[in-house]
Amino acid sequence: MPILNKDMTVCISLAGRPSNIGTRFHNYLYDELGLNYLYKAFTTDDLEGAIRGIRALGIRGCSVSMPFKEAIIPLVDVVEESAAAIDAVNTVVNDDGVLSASNTDYEAVAELLAEHEVDPGSRVLLRGSGGMAKAVVAAFRGAGFDDVTVLARNESAGSALAGRYGYRHVREENAAPATDLLVNVTPLGMDGPDADALAFDESRIRAATTVFDVVAFPSRTPLIRAAAEVGVPVITGTEVIALQAARQFARYTGVVPDRNLVERASQFSRA
Amino acid sequence: MPILNKDMTVCISLAGRPSNIGTRFHNYLYDELGLNYLYKAFTTDDLEGAIRGIRALGIRGCSVSMPFKEAIIPLVDVVEESAAAIDAVNTVVNDDGVLSASNTDYEAVAELLAEHEVDPGSRVLLRGSGGMAKAVVAAFRGAGFDDVTVLARNESAGSALAGRYGYRHVREENAAPATDLLVNVTPLGMDGPDADALAFDESRIRAATTVFDVVAFPSRTPLIRAAAEVGVPVITGTEVIALQAARQFARYTGVVPDRNLVERASQFSRA
Repeated sequence: MPILNKDMTVCISLAGRPSNIGTRFHNYLYDELGLNYLYKAFTTDDLEGAIRGIRALGIRGCSVSMPFKEAIIPLVDVVEESAAAIDAVNTVVNDDGVLSASNTDYEAVAELLAEHEVDPGSRVLLRGSGGMAKAVVAAFRGAGFDDVTVLARNESAGSALAGRYGYRHVREENAAPATDLLVNVTPLGMDGPDADALAFDESRIRAATTVFDVVAFPSRTPLIRAAAEVGVPVITGTEVIALQAARQFARYTGVVPDRNLVERASQFSRA
Repeated sequence: MPILNKDMTVCISLAGRPSNIGTRFHNYLYDELGLNYLYKAFTTDDLEGAIRGIRALGIRGCSVSMPFKEAIIPLVDVVEESAAAIDAVNTVVNDDGVLSASNTDYEAVAELLAEHEVDPGSRVLLRGSGGMAKAVVAAFRGAGFDDVTVLARNESAGSALAGRYGYRHVREENAAPATDLLVNVTPLGMDGPDADALAFDESRIRAATTVFDVVAFPSRTPLIRAAAEVGVPVITGTEVIALQAARQFARYTGVVPDRNLVERASQFSRA
């Protein structure tokens, strides 16, 4: 790291339980690109006060995580389409006192679908109904996918999410139709109690054209491993995290880091 | 510098026109002492919002400079004696949401007078009537000096300052009585338009027992040079700045850096 100085532009994050990823990712890129910026994770029990502080101290950007993604909406000046579409913010940019809120999770999912050339005519089975599932489902709708089934045990959350975007809801996988693209947006396979869980049946994985797991820890989940073993193309949570963070980085600094550099920063941030 | 991480304790400064000194001084010491801290200078046009942000983000400490030294008083929870004595704050410490304000300029001057073994019976001529002059005059009163003459062109500011502490005021140096200790708390001799000005007559400097120049830029002012040339002991503004910053550092971190380390940090901060 360079020697800190008074002129550094400051970006922060707000999360109930901050991880070290953002701090390492952004500072790594600042250093590599010679930008006089500084990034630091914070938590707060006074979101309104934190936003007031961002304005008063001229903090340039703020990444927003649970549980602040919705609560921050009335505190900003502009809510961009990516955040409005899902009532959830993960990025705030401060342009001379005007705070604009957006959602780079949504943007990153849309970009990954295009980059991996996933056919919008695909039949999609998406598992999950939480906040991140909302971003992913909305991104599918935004990308023109018409045939999406939301698989969620929780009847009210699942049907509300599916209904909002004109999609189908099922509570059990065996009630879902045949599908091409499988998407996991639950903690199944994530480090923790469900680390060994496979989010979809093996037969369905074998029949898939693409498997997309939004879980990023570990980078190779049981679902990603199962798909790779049978030669099914994958999109990983690591790609989502790196891409959404790269988009935040570009919003904060005006500099678009190239893919190799983002990959190195991503690896560094997870080390 | 170490790689930045989410767990760093953050200290900041608030000033109308931030210098780089504090940021370099504190971060140098954090690095040398292996403390997981981070220090960054800020300015603001919303002092109340900045204080709200300090509380909401759990910022540990805040150094305060012009023009916020008085205005910050109603925004904190506790005003310590060192700040109350002069209605001016230069240090705010956040203990789990309780903000305590103090003035380490006052403390540093008092400590330097003791350390240099200046006799409280000395006859003192002090030039200046601004905010820092208030801290210095109050420190003389606190240290038991009875014979102090405040030399200030500004009649109302000079007489008010002298009167508050039971001291004498004169507008011209030739109206001042014979003195032992000379103290400059004006910009005379400071880098800028008055860089060549000598704050006191040469004859008075030759007759002095000690010369104290609060001006820190340059470290060797015309007054300090003139005193040193004729063998009069000196106390410099560089000592004041380093000592008051070291006291802030101790308040923020709980660690008292030793004199050699403070000296190195001070040199680094001015480089």
